[in-house]
Amino acid sequence: MHWNTGDLEKLERRYRGNLINSIGGYKSLLLVGTQSSQGNNNLAIFSSYFHIGADPAMCGMVVRPAEETENTLGNILQTGHYTLNHVLPSFYEKAHQCSAKYPAGVSEFERVGLTPHYMDAFKAPFVAESSIKMGCEFVQKMDIAFNGTTIIIGRIVFLEAPDDCLLDDGSIDLNASQTVTCSGLDTYHVAQLLGKLPYAKSPK
Amino acid sequence: MHWNTGDLEKLERRYRGNLINSIGGYKSLLLVGTQSSQGNNNLAIFSSYFHIGADPAMCGMVVRPAEETENTLGNILQTGHYTLNHVLPSFYEKAHQCSAKYPAGVSEFERVGLTPHYMDAFKAPFVAESSIKMGCEFVQKMDIAFNGTTIIIGRIVFLEAPDDCLLDDGSIDLNASQTVTCSGLDTYHVAQLLGKLPYAKSPK
Repeated sequence: MHWNTGDLEKLERRYRGNLINSIGGYKSLLLVGTQSSQGNNNLAIFSSYFHIGADPAMCGMVVRPAEETENTLGNILQTGHYTLNHVLPSFYEKAHQCSAKYPAGVSEFERVGLTPHYMDAFKAPFVAESSIKMGCEFVQKMDIAFNGTTIIIGRIVFLEAPDDCLLDDGSIDLNASQTVTCSGLDTYHVAQLLGKLPYAKSPK
Repeated sequence: MHWNTGDLEKLERRYRGNLINSIGGYKSLLLVGTQSSQGNNNLAIFSSYFHIGADPAMCGMVVRPAEETENTLGNILQTGHYTLNHVLPSFYEKAHQCSAKYPAGVSEFERVGLTPHYMDAFKAPFVAESSIKMGCEFVQKMDIAFNGTTIIIGRIVFLEAPDDCLLDDGSIDLNASQTVTCSGLDTYHVAQLLGKLPYAKSPK
């Protein structure tokens, strides 16, 4: 099956959404925890995380103009902080439920049954059930005029991972951590190792 | 194990690179095909693809300031076209080898043993061995001053996927397509379905 631009434009809206959301392959799946300046917690599920650099440690994610993500963006801009939390098989259904539309001010933690966890002076809640947790500071936002989305760029200022998931070279063993990945907006997977390869060199 | 900003800064460079590159979870893995205005093919491996929107179909990826990616960025700016090709278990080692440094003008297709495939007037080569192929037109680049990286934003103008990987709702079945995902810069995985969940609604 193949599609060109004209074919894509003619597709039914949800069909096209499912196709384009899944065609790029497996995605990072993270629960994003934020808090409003009034102290209301918000938890949202994102699959648009991307690595920007390791020194300083920086990452990006795309925030859609849709209603359900306004709280995340608004809270990040208010407090400057957000958390990124891995999803495990034991609570992926609760993570998915965070994509439902709840009224502003309602805590998804409470509604889906996950536990907010606070650390020091960090102004955003982590997910207690997540074994791998990241704390980020807002750096910059970039608006994409073409479709009204916004890229949030952040600096990773805190990391936590189980000792038995940390390899000697600093890599996280995502199979051992049972980290969940997703495709599209509704399909969840765990992964199996094919191979860890040596640094690629060109033959002399 | 946990790290704060000060701990991260003290880590050995490669250790920190492995940690930060893998901490965000599984990533989209794509071979990016481009061609210079002189007609030289280039094939590079990227794990920073992210979804931006479905209508119009748009995606982004991060290009590092490093030497080996200069060809990809330069070629995209010259021709306006690039291809994104899924990696399969049968050739993931060849895909990894594309990360080696080859001199400018050398075709990674030839060196690693993959086959360029041309379509109509599209000014970039696809990977014949990839069952899922995407053709993109350059839309915009955004420079991240903080670390010298660049975000390339493109419009998806062509898609190809095997009939037996396309579900009734438009989703691609990435388990059926045997699409490879990666963690960090050197570790490759295939995935297994946990579940495909219904659209999440908040209880009335």
